[in-house]
Amino acid sequence: MTHDWKAIDAAVRVEPGEKSKLKERDTVCDHLFADRDAAEAALKDCAKAINDLQDRLWAERSRSLLVVLQGIDTSGKDGTVRGVFNQCGPLGVSVTAFGKPTEEELAHDYLWRVHAAVPKKGMIGVFNRSHYEDVLVVKVRGLAPSETIEQRYAQINAFEKHLSENGVVILKFMLHISKDEQRERLQERLDRPEKNWKFNAGDLEDRKLWDEYQSAYETLLDRCSTAHAPWRVIPADKKWRRNAMIAAIVHGTLADMAPTYPRVSWKPTDFTVV
Amino acid sequence: MTHDWKAIDAAVRVEPGEKSKLKERDTVCDHLFADRDAAEAALKDCAKAINDLQDRLWAERSRSLLVVLQGIDTSGKDGTVRGVFNQCGPLGVSVTAFGKPTEEELAHDYLWRVHAAVPKKGMIGVFNRSHYEDVLVVKVRGLAPSETIEQRYAQINAFEKHLSENGVVILKFMLHISKDEQRERLQERLDRPEKNWKFNAGDLEDRKLWDEYQSAYETLLDRCSTAHAPWRVIPADKKWRRNAMIAAIVHGTLADMAPTYPRVSWKPTDFTVV
Repeated sequence: MTHDWKAIDAAVRVEPGEKSKLKERDTVCDHLFADRDAAEAALKDCAKAINDLQDRLWAERSRSLLVVLQGIDTSGKDGTVRGVFNQCGPLGVSVTAFGKPTEEELAHDYLWRVHAAVPKKGMIGVFNRSHYEDVLVVKVRGLAPSETIEQRYAQINAFEKHLSENGVVILKFMLHISKDEQRERLQERLDRPEKNWKFNAGDLEDRKLWDEYQSAYETLLDRCSTAHAPWRVIPADKKWRRNAMIAAIVHGTLADMAPTYPRVSWKPTDFTVV
Repeated sequence: MTHDWKAIDAAVRVEPGEKSKLKERDTVCDHLFADRDAAEAALKDCAKAINDLQDRLWAERSRSLLVVLQGIDTSGKDGTVRGVFNQCGPLGVSVTAFGKPTEEELAHDYLWRVHAAVPKKGMIGVFNRSHYEDVLVVKVRGLAPSETIEQRYAQINAFEKHLSENGVVILKFMLHISKDEQRERLQERLDRPEKNWKFNAGDLEDRKLWDEYQSAYETLLDRCSTAHAPWRVIPADKKWRRNAMIAAIVHGTLADMAPTYPRVSWKPTDFTVV
């Protein structure tokens, strides 16, 4: 790989214990992957390497990788899954979309459905939205008492610490787009007939609460970026840069995990296939 | 598409009510996709088209496609998932591997875990092994009384009829390889160090029961190839032909389902994105 993933990572990571200063974070970041062709080449290389590393992760069967994707409507969560993980394919990657909780889910605590979807050993799991919705939409729309929500940040940190101590490596990405970019993307859903079905009038209601959502994001970034599961704020106005950055960080993380094919306890000559 | 998927399908389908004559079925089938380059081009086209159709299936959110992959060890179930469905990616395809049942699963009837894994509306679900193991390994190894197994064929047919009447289109593929081809593939796992971890001494035990397994397959093909869920016996000695054939049938089936983007009940000018 020609890119320096550690430098890219450092530029977008929210350091544990520091303020995220979300408002000051750029949604474009021209200086990281300045060249589109280079970014697309890097994405291709990383996606291929992720596929290879996942095969080893599966062979090893002792750890898993959990990728959490959060971002407001149109921020590109689905597109990220396609861009970064299609090479790896459905055999090694499971995607869980967390929508409005069902009655059954609401009959349990909010982490119940999340815990059930944590990827098993050997797999990469992608959360398309996650338990963070329980301190986002739930907070902005007042769906739970504020004291309840206030307790959740520490609960989430404890939950993620538990997972990380039990073989789950956690990568959390906030897909950060500008308000202008969201307008263009919502407008596109209205303008292009084949995208009409994706348009949801409720998205406009959420857009009116833009500042409240940004504030809720800032709070969770400040409070839930931990040493065991730091947040990355990905500049996501440019889809190709977003994909290249996330693929670089996923690849770098997997490479650092260095999964290896298990050594077998027998010699090939022990067996004869008749 | 330049290939005639209906002709390919007719060549491999087990007609409901007819004997499968498994022993007479070729594991190579040179005449179908005779040319490798053409097969690989067809696979590429089909995989792309499957991806597009799945997007519509998701938009429509009223039906799902269940692809059942069965075949003896090394027959290429994983390779089929990669070859046919990676283009579609993990967003639209979920894969469920059915291994040895857990205690929890054994505490329920054998279709319980299978039903739970049926793809939701809008999705393509792939079963890597399936409920058919309950009339395969269970039968060959004598893990249940023969009267119990005898009842299962009709139970499975009723279950699949239920699914098909409830919006689940079912495609069942038996990956059919020759005994010689299996020997080569098992030997490869011994000869290539990076494949050693895939080798399982138990596979040699199953290989000794080759005839018993073929016979159990023949019975389920004869008894569970129904109008609502016919079996296809795919010549699978050549991986590229296997993938091209399965992709052609999956694509043809999805195209016949003809999912469409839903019409919306509003006009784009009803909304303004501010």
